[in-house]
Formats: sequence, C-alpha cells, structure tokens
Amino acid sequence: MRPEPILDVAQLAHVEILTPKPDETLWFFKELLGLEETAREGQSAYLRAYEDFYHHTLKVTESKEPGLGHVAWRTRSQQALDRRVKAIEATGLGKGWSENDLGQGAAYQFATPDGHNMELLWEVEYYKAPDHMKTPLLNRPQKRPTRGVPVRRLDHVNLMAGDLETSSDFMQEKLGFNLRERIQQNDGKNIADWMSVSPLVHEVAMMQDQLGGRGRLHHICYWYGFPQHISDISEILNEHDVKIEAGPGKHGVSQAYFLYVIEPGGNRVELFGDPGYLIFDPDWEPVVWKEEDLEKGIIWYGSQLPDDFFQYGTPNIKAPVVTK
Amino acid sequence: MRPEPILDVAQLAHVEILTPKPDETLWFFKELLGLEETAREGQSAYLRAYEDFYHHTLKVTESKEPGLGHVAWRTRSQQALDRRVKAIEATGLGKGWSENDLGQGAAYQFATPDGHNMELLWEVEYYKAPDHMKTPLLNRPQKRPTRGVPVRRLDHVNLMAGDLETSSDFMQEKLGFNLRERIQQNDGKNIADWMSVSPLVHEVAMMQDQLGGRGRLHHICYWYGFPQHISDISEILNEHDVKIEAGPGKHGVSQAYFLYVIEPGGNRVELFGDPGYLIFDPDWEPVVWKEEDLEKGIIWYGSQLPDDFFQYGTPNIKAPVVTK
Amino acid sequence: MRPEPILDVAQLAHVEILTPKPDETLWFFKELLGLEETAREGQSAYLRAYEDFYHHTLKVTESKEPGLGHVAWRTRSQQALDRRVKAIEATGLGKGWSENDLGQGAAYQFATPDGHNMELLWEVEYYKAPDHMKTPLLNRPQKRPTRGVPVRRLDHVNLMAGDLETSSDFMQEKLGFNLRERIQQNDGKNIADWMSVSPLVHEVAMMQDQLGGRGRLHHICYWYGFPQHISDISEILNEHDVKIEAGPGKHGVSQAYFLYVIEPGGNRVELFGDPGYLIFDPDWEPVVWKEEDLEKGIIWYGSQLPDDFFQYGTPNIKAPVVTK
Amino acid sequence: MRPEPILDVAQLAHVEILTPKPDETLWFFKELLGLEETAREGQSAYLRAYEDFYHHTLKVTESKEPGLGHVAWRTRSQQALDRRVKAIEATGLGKGWSENDLGQGAAYQFATPDGHNMELLWEVEYYKAPDHMKTPLLNRPQKRPTRGVPVRRLDHVNLMAGDLETSSDFMQEKLGFNLRERIQQNDGKNIADWMSVSPLVHEVAMMQDQLGGRGRLHHICYWYGFPQHISDISEILNEHDVKIEAGPGKHGVSQAYFLYVIEPGGNRVELFGDPGYLIFDPDWEPVVWKEEDLEKGIIWYGSQLPDDFFQYGTPNIKAPVVTK
Repeated sequence: MRPEPILDVAQLAHVEILTPKPDETLWFFKELLGLEETAREGQSAYLRAYEDFYHHTLKVTESKEPGLGHVAWRTRSQQALDRRVKAIEATGLGKGWSENDLGQGAAYQFATPDGHNMELLWEVEYYKAPDHMKTPLLNRPQKRPTRGVPVRRLDHVNLMAGDLETSSDFMQEKLGFNLRERIQQNDGKNIADWMSVSPLVHEVAMMQDQLGGRGRLHHICYWYGFPQHISDISEILNEHDVKIEAGPGKHGVSQAYFLYVIEPGGNRVELFGDPGYLIFDPDWEPVVWKEEDLEKGIIWYGSQLPDDFFQYGTPNIKAPVVTK
Repeated sequence: MRPEPILDVAQLAHVEILTPKPDETLWFFKELLGLEETAREGQSAYLRAYEDFYHHTLKVTESKEPGLGHVAWRTRSQQALDRRVKAIEATGLGKGWSENDLGQGAAYQFATPDGHNMELLWEVEYYKAPDHMKTPLLNRPQKRPTRGVPVRRLDHVNLMAGDLETSSDFMQEKLGFNLRERIQQNDGKNIADWMSVSPLVHEVAMMQDQLGGRGRLHHICYWYGFPQHISDISEILNEHDVKIEAGPGKHGVSQAYFLYVIEPGGNRVELFGDPGYLIFDPDWEPVVWKEEDLEKGIIWYGSQLPDDFFQYGTPNIKAPVVTK
Repeated sequence: MRPEPILDVAQLAHVEILTPKPDETLWFFKELLGLEETAREGQSAYLRAYEDFYHHTLKVTESKEPGLGHVAWRTRSQQALDRRVKAIEATGLGKGWSENDLGQGAAYQFATPDGHNMELLWEVEYYKAPDHMKTPLLNRPQKRPTRGVPVRRLDHVNLMAGDLETSSDFMQEKLGFNLRERIQQNDGKNIADWMSVSPLVHEVAMMQDQLGGRGRLHHICYWYGFPQHISDISEILNEHDVKIEAGPGKHGVSQAYFLYVIEPGGNRVELFGDPGYLIFDPDWEPVVWKEEDLEKGIIWYGSQLPDDFFQYGTPNIKAPVVTK
Repeated sequence: MRPEPILDVAQLAHVEILTPKPDETLWFFKELLGLEETAREGQSAYLRAYEDFYHHTLKVTESKEPGLGHVAWRTRSQQALDRRVKAIEATGLGKGWSENDLGQGAAYQFATPDGHNMELLWEVEYYKAPDHMKTPLLNRPQKRPTRGVPVRRLDHVNLMAGDLETSSDFMQEKLGFNLRERIQQNDGKNIADWMSVSPLVHEVAMMQDQLGGRGRLHHICYWYGFPQHISDISEILNEHDVKIEAGPGKHGVSQAYFLYVIEPGGNRVELFGDPGYLIFDPDWEPVVWKEEDLEKGIIWYGSQLPDDFFQYGTPNIKAPVVTK
C-alpha cells in the first residue's frame, strides 16, 4: 500500500516583493488593481485584495533592485507546522523562527535549495473592515473597491530556479506539494513544474532560469476569475503607460486566461481572468507536455509570449530584450 | 492544542439520480448540457461532462419517481477509505461493500441519518477518449462537445433533510466535512448548511425539509465557470420548453451565479456560471447568515427564488406550486 | 410606389433630468457610473460618459421634484433640422428657438402632445480631452475612468404618456421615428412602443402611464455593452445602498440585458449590459407582442419586474409600492 | 450650406464566397459556426445565421479557387435603388439587372473600379422558420442552434484593392458610404479605409493590396457580440484543426474584439466578439491613424497579427508565409 500524502501546507499566505520605486509600485497595485493598504512600517507597505481574508497578501519593500522578498505558506494546523519545520531543519535549509512581522504569529524561515526565501506559519491576523467598508455580503471581508479594476485574491507565485529539479523536489518532498503539470524537453530534462497543495493547478510554479540566475522571481499572480476584467484592466494599463508584456491569452498548461504586466518597479505581475480548471483527483497523474505538444501548451489561444518572457525575471540579470 | 482535522474525503465522485422519463432526462443532459454517455447497463446510463476525468459523474437510473439514487465520495487514499469505513461502521449506518458498479472498484455503502444513500470509494476508472475525441489540450480528457452549451464538471449536490442537524453533524464528524456557511433562524435553529472537503464552498449542502420529507434531493449541480454560458443555456432552455425555475442570479451564500432548471424527469438541476469564491483558509470560521442578513444572503443580485424553491424536491411529496 | 422615409433625425443627443438631491445624484453618476463633469452653470451640471463624443449627454438640474427636464435630438444636417422644425411648427407644439444652453448651437424647443419637453438641434460642441485624459485609442474621446464601473455612452430614454398613441404617432410622423416593437392588449390598445431612427431598437420608448400622469419620465439608459459590467455595478450598488429595482435580466422586447436602478434623486436609470440586436432592415415590420406572448417578451430570462415598475415614474404621482 | 448626405444604401445584405472545397467549407459554417442552410441550387448553397432575417447572408459557390463571388447591398427604398443605379450607370461600371438569384428580387450588378463584383437590390425574401424552429422570442427569426458556437449575424466584408483610393472614393461618392476610420502613411498615402452607411464602423473595409492583386477578398465577418463566444469558438477550432490565424485580440481601429480564421476552402473569416463602438454622429470626422499611432491602432490589446495577414487574401496570389 502506498504511503499517504503529506497534507500539511494549506495555502499561499502572502508574498513579499522588492521594488526600487515604491511609490510607483504602490500606485500600480492600489490605484489600478484596487488593492487596499493595511499597514506601513519601515520600508514596507502591506496590501491585500478585497477578497483576501488576512492582514495582507502582498508586502512591498523598498530595495535597490526588484525581486522576491519572500513567500509565506500557511499550514493546516500547529501540528502540521511543527512537522514541516522538522522536515526542513533536517535539510539544513532552515533559518529559524521570526516573530517580527506584522499580521502573523511566529514564522519559520528557510530558503529553497535555489535560494528563494520562504516561511511557514500557522497563526495569522484576520482583516476586520471598518464600518464604512463593511458589506452585507458576509463571506466577503470588505466592500469591493471603486478604484481601478480590482483584483480579488492572491493566486500564486512563479519562481525561476538555476537548478529546477532540486528545488522542485524540495517543494514536493519536504513541503508536500503535488506536481500537477510539467514541461519536459525531449532529452528528459524538466524545464518547468507547476505544483499545488490545493485543487488549484499551482500555488507555485518553478521554471528553469535560462540565464543561470538563482532565486529569482518570475512573477506573482492576482486573480480576477472573470475574463472581462482582463479586457478592462488591459484598457486601463494601456491608457496609463504600464507595459503589457503578453496577453490576453489562454495557456494550455493550467488553462489560465492570462495577462502579464511589468509593474513600475520592474517585477512581472500576472492577472488571472478565468476560473481555470481545478484538480480534485487525490491521485492526479501529472500532465507532462513534451516538445511536440508545447505550442498548444504554452498558448492554447490568444496572445503569444515574447522570447524575453522566458528570460526576464527579477532581479534582472541582463538588459531585457525589447519585444514589442 | 486542537486536534488535527480529518482530511480523508477528497471529492464528490458522482451522483446517481432517478427518473421516470429516462429518454427525456438523457436528452436534456446530452443534447442541451453536452454530457457524454460512457456506458449503459440495465436501467442505467452513465454520463460525464467533458472536463470530468473519471468514467462517469452522473448515473441516470429509470425509476417510478424522480429522486436521489446515491452520492459517491472519493477518499484521499486507500488508508483514508479504511478509516472512514471504520468510523461509519461504528455509527450503525453502514451497509457494506459493493463491487458491482461500473467505472469503480469496491465501494462502501451507507446512508445519512436522514436516509440519503451514499458510498465511499478509492478506486476509480479513468476516462480514455477515443482518437477522434482527443484534444491537444492535455489536461482536458476529451474535446469540448459541439452540442448544446456543454457543462464542464460536476460541482455539488444539495440534499433536503427532515432532521438537518443530525445529518449535518454526521457529514462533519464522520466524514470530515467542514462547515462553510449556515443559515440560522433567530431561534437558533439551523436551516441550511454548506459543507466541503476542498476549497469549494460546498460539495454538499443540506437544507431543512420544510415538508418533513426524509432523504430527498434538492438538486445536483454542474459547473460552467463562465457567466455567459448561463445566458446561453437560458436561451436554449427557453426555446426547448425546459422549465427555468430561477436565475440567472447570484446567491450571497457561496457567491454562486446560479440557474435552476427542472429536468424533464422532475429533478432540479443547478448550473453554476461563476468561479464563486474559494476557501483556502485551513481554520475557516463558518459564515452564519441570520434572518436579518438573509435577503442579501439568498440573492445578492438578480432573479428571486420562488417560494416553491424551498419546498420542492424529489421525490415530490406534494403538488408543486406553479410559480411562473 | 411607397413614399420614402423621413431620415432627418440622427440621434439622441442628450437628456436633462431634474433632481431634488443634486449632490447625491451627481455622486451616483460620477463616482459609481464614472461619468465626467464638463461644466456647471446655475443649478445645472453637465456630464458625459467616456465614450460620448459631445460636450454632454446628461444635464442634471436641481428641482423640487425629480423628473424629465428635456430630451434633445440631433438632426442629420442643417437642412434636416429646418424641415423638422417646419413640421413641428405646423402642429402647434413648437415653442421656438433657444440659443442659451452650453455645448450646443441653436435648439428648437417643443413638447410632445403628452407634454415631454424636447428640442432639435444640429450644431454641437465636441468634447476635447485635456492632455492627461487623452488616450492612444484615437476613436475614444478620453481615457476610460478608473472610478466605479464606468458606463460607455447614453443609449435611450423611456417616457410615460397619458395618451400613448398620440405621442407615439407624433414621434413617428413628425420626427420620422420607426416603430420597432410594440406591446398590444388583446382589445387592440397599444400600451408600449419602442421607436428609433438608427439600428438601435430604440432611442425612445413610450409606455402608457397607468396612473394617468402626463409627461413623466420612466427612465434614462446608459450603455455598457458587456454583460459582466452589469454584475460589477450590481455589487457596487448593493454595497453603497443604491436601490436595484430589477435585474440583471434580459428583456424579450429589444433583447436588452438590463439593470434598473433608482438614483438617489428618485429617477429610474437603466443600465444596458448587452449589445442587444440591431435593425438594419430598412423595411422593418414592427414586432407586436400580444398578451399571450408577453411573459417572454417582458422577461426572456432572469430577474422579474416588480409591479411598481409599470407605475413608478418621475415625478412620482403616488407613493411607490415597496416591492423588495 | 453643405449638401445633404446620400442615404440610399441601407445595409450589407449578403456575400458570396467561392471555395474549392465546398463540403469542408459548409461543414465549417454549419457545424462550427451554426449557420443554417436555406437552399441549394447548382453549385451553390445559401446560408444564414440565426439572427439574420433574410433568406440568406452567405452564398457558398464551388469554384476552382477561393475568393469573393459578390457583395450585395440593400437600399433604403425602391427610389433609393433607382438613384444609385443611375449614379453607377454614369460611371460605366454597371453590368445590368439580374433576376435570377434565390431569395431576392431584381438586383443591379456592377463592379468596383478594382473589380469586386457587387449588386444593389431592394426586394428581399424574408426567412420564415418552420414550426419546430420557431422561438417565443418574437424578434428572433428562429431558435438559436445547438450546434457549434453559433454566430448571430453577418457583419461586414473586407476587400483588398490594387488601387485603394479609386475604389474607396467610388464607395463613398457613388454609394454614399461614410469614411469612418483610415490608416495613412506618413507620405500621405492611404492604405486602409473603413466605411459604413449605418452606425457600425464599417460594413465594408478596403485595404491596399500589397501584392498588387485586384478584386481580392480579405475576409468576411460574422458577429457574436459576446466576448466569451470568441473563447468558446477558439477552443472548438483548435480541437477540429481549423487554423486560427490571429486573435483573440482587440483592434484599436473599430474597437473590434476579433478572431481571424482560415476556413477549409482558404477564405479568411473574422468573428466579432464585441459590440465595438457605434457612430451615431451624423457629422463624423474620420479618425486617421498615422504611422506613429499604428501599433495601438492595429492591436489595442491581445494577439498580434502575423505579417501574412496584410498579404494573404483570396484568391491567393503567392504561397502564404507560414506564420505559426
């Protein structure tokens, strides 16, 4: 009988991104994507989308260069947290507990083998709307904003890895992520993995860093769920000189209806305009896209991706190829 | 420290409905909703939507009266199945193992305290498309049909219970369902519960049977995900004399964009045109709608529900009130 | 050979509405529907939607009671204006020329037989966006607003008439409107007419005033074109305590996907979320809905209309029945 | 005072296309786009979309090569027809009257200066649905089909011209088309014109034939109106090996949400998923896109166009560049 799966990590709790242009980055997320700021401390601002239930899902921290701060995962219980910490400690990748950040209890910090900073936590602070932002829709934490085209919730993070296989294995074996989809070269080398702990096709994707970087951020993604909002935000972005890198289009992999945008600080942000498909099968066989399937896998229909899409990440380790 | 949650049931695998008009019921599901028939045996036909991965998600069985045949749940593993069977056996509600049905391995049969037939299973048969139905979209089990307005996957089942509390507790305590939302009268009595084992707000809802029936079916639900398809199917239903009972509209509870239809055999079928919201929080506090919140909870916007919505189920235990 | 049609009136240019609560009315149109204010003079503010090309399409004037100020029609040419003025003068319903209003040249004022104030004009002032509101989309007069869920353009006006037939005939015979659709009682009496000078099913509808009022406003309508925006604005309206009277739903008549809202000043505003159907046939036979067709004609699918929908207009001549 | 506009042509009545593969072409239009066949005679089949009111809007005729058969325009009246025939006769481009085709009365045949066959007609035959295809939606000529993703109506035709200016002038001066939008090179040469007789931005577009061909067809366009249907048909096309050339995307010019498909006979077909914008202004100033505006004019957002888009037409006068 096969061993039972690890079910200890429950969800992506938040992401921290770094930006050299904090004012412009915050304008982008708040005025165009409708995020709410819940706190500011030091060089960081804490934001959430209107259907995010916790204190924040995005921490924006001023830095010399854009890139990933860290990724935070919430476990299913205190016990689950303890089990995962033990597993990470055994790998030597653990850094220890931190109790300093806003909106959460103790978090155990570590890095992937490729150097992406992450943390695991159980205790979170829930957002409580002030009276003027309360809605009669009791399962929504606040009124829907009337600014921009507001995103609904944090969806996933996509990371570039100099050594994809090692970091992908780490996520699966130590944290219990399930491999959902994969792109594999004809020589057998895997170049992109989509992994999740929930029915979402991914809360984290990892792709081989073609430039040999380590620990870089490919993109973070917020979710609309409705295709029209991708059109709406495309108009707004065009009219406010924010660069649309690609989309709207629909990936074959994950069936995501996507838009990729470069926020003013340089980080790539994906917007999801689609419910996609969900994986409820507890015994899911990963979908492997080989080279001959890849054209439809990358783009099922709609906008193609520029070549630079597969190389540009943050921090930027070469001048981006201007593609449009 | 709180005990850890039960995580043994993974998903709604299929539902069996009974119909006195099997030809008309199959016409409805196949020609209008685009389901595919995978097998026929005895008085039953086996159907699946084009994004359903298993042999079937709907079994339609000829019977004198419409109603629920049974509901099948798939566990997360063989071990999980064994644990749940043991828990059910201890309640005296178990009926034993069956190995006779198509598309699955051994299933453990039982009933809720209210008498809804259910089964638990681990082994399932996956659907394999014949060549002419294969699609280059590798994460889709077959081509999207060109008949009707095809639904994508089975979503949930809604059951009426003469004694809601006992059956709801059974689902939570013995099977590990999480209570997500609830309607509660001012006198403290619960009249509807939405429960899930996944981020969906519900795979099963139970509502108090106002007519005192037992074990009745309120509706089954298939999922579109895209609001436009609710408009599209509404047109088709109107033009083919299939009764739209209510919708399109959006519930506050579950945030579902709904359409309720009475299939020709008499069973209510819901169609979901919306990604809704998803619950990733592992420590979710159930949303309780009290009487004063209920207007927006029942209908956030759009079509109202007729009074008969809260009484009509199958089998029908009184003549339905004609409401439109 | 039949006489040739009158083709002199080209379009609905603007509507003036009266409101006892100008601040709240302006908040509604500007903050929720995203209209832009282009001028303010005396007790009036001038507004336009972001795809309206002229100086204004809505004039909001403070008044003791809500209701219609006037309706302005633009002709196809100066010569067409002269011909129509001559035809109106011959009826005795003309009031003479006015050159006082903002954003337009000389306008010839008159009233329908039922007393709705109207004007005909040829010269209009075009809106020119300031630099920060210019868009690279050259066929759009300004950037799409980032406030609320912005409507795109004025669509039509719906008037209640104490004597429908006389005013409807006037619109057709003197102004050249084409009758597109009609509701007719079994006794042969017409109770609602939809008329247009363009492929739109109507720029003006007239319905029999069941309360015997004269010259009342049923509603004005702005256009989204995209169904999703009706859902979006429904959420915003619910969360900001603006009364949704009916919708979303789709009328059979005109095939409009509608939402009816009562703006804070008391006037009914319709929002159109649908391209509807367009009439290009130059020899269109009016569609006549008889009593037996009416259920599907009023509501093809979706939200029903409250009884009060057919009686409430502005000014209000009896206390509105509270319908939800 | 300026002269009054010519208002004699009312609409695009139908288009005839030629195909070397009539069975495959008919399969495409009937099974995937849901068109209905109303008649077959000789080497031709006559088709209409479910919201087309006349006998046909598409005539598919077997031929050695794909391309344009002819374009038919309906006038506003018999008198209008007589006036336009007189104007065409004076140019020497007239060919005389034909009374032989199905579904219409006498048609006056002519060619544009570039050699595109056209006809003008007044009398048309209206489609009458058989009982089983009648719908309670009285303004719809038949039930919505349950095959494929059915288009709603014919929208426009796009023609390539070896000498754009002469043919464009002919359409404007002899037939009364209004120039709505234009692409103009920096050297002052116009390379594409969009023209209409209705509020649509175009019923006919003409673009300079870069390969020097004459009288070629760039594409015909059918209309959905709803963006979701472009996604739906994209899936179906991908799964049935019909080539999507470009889209979904949104043009700046005309604001059309487009999909371009090559039907099996080789002709390009556009599908419109958007209400676009409508021009009601009777004194519209053409929007002129210069080279520096063109990037956003060609693609406002979404899928780029392959280079071949500007060269490939039917008949094909060189091997198409394979672009994806």
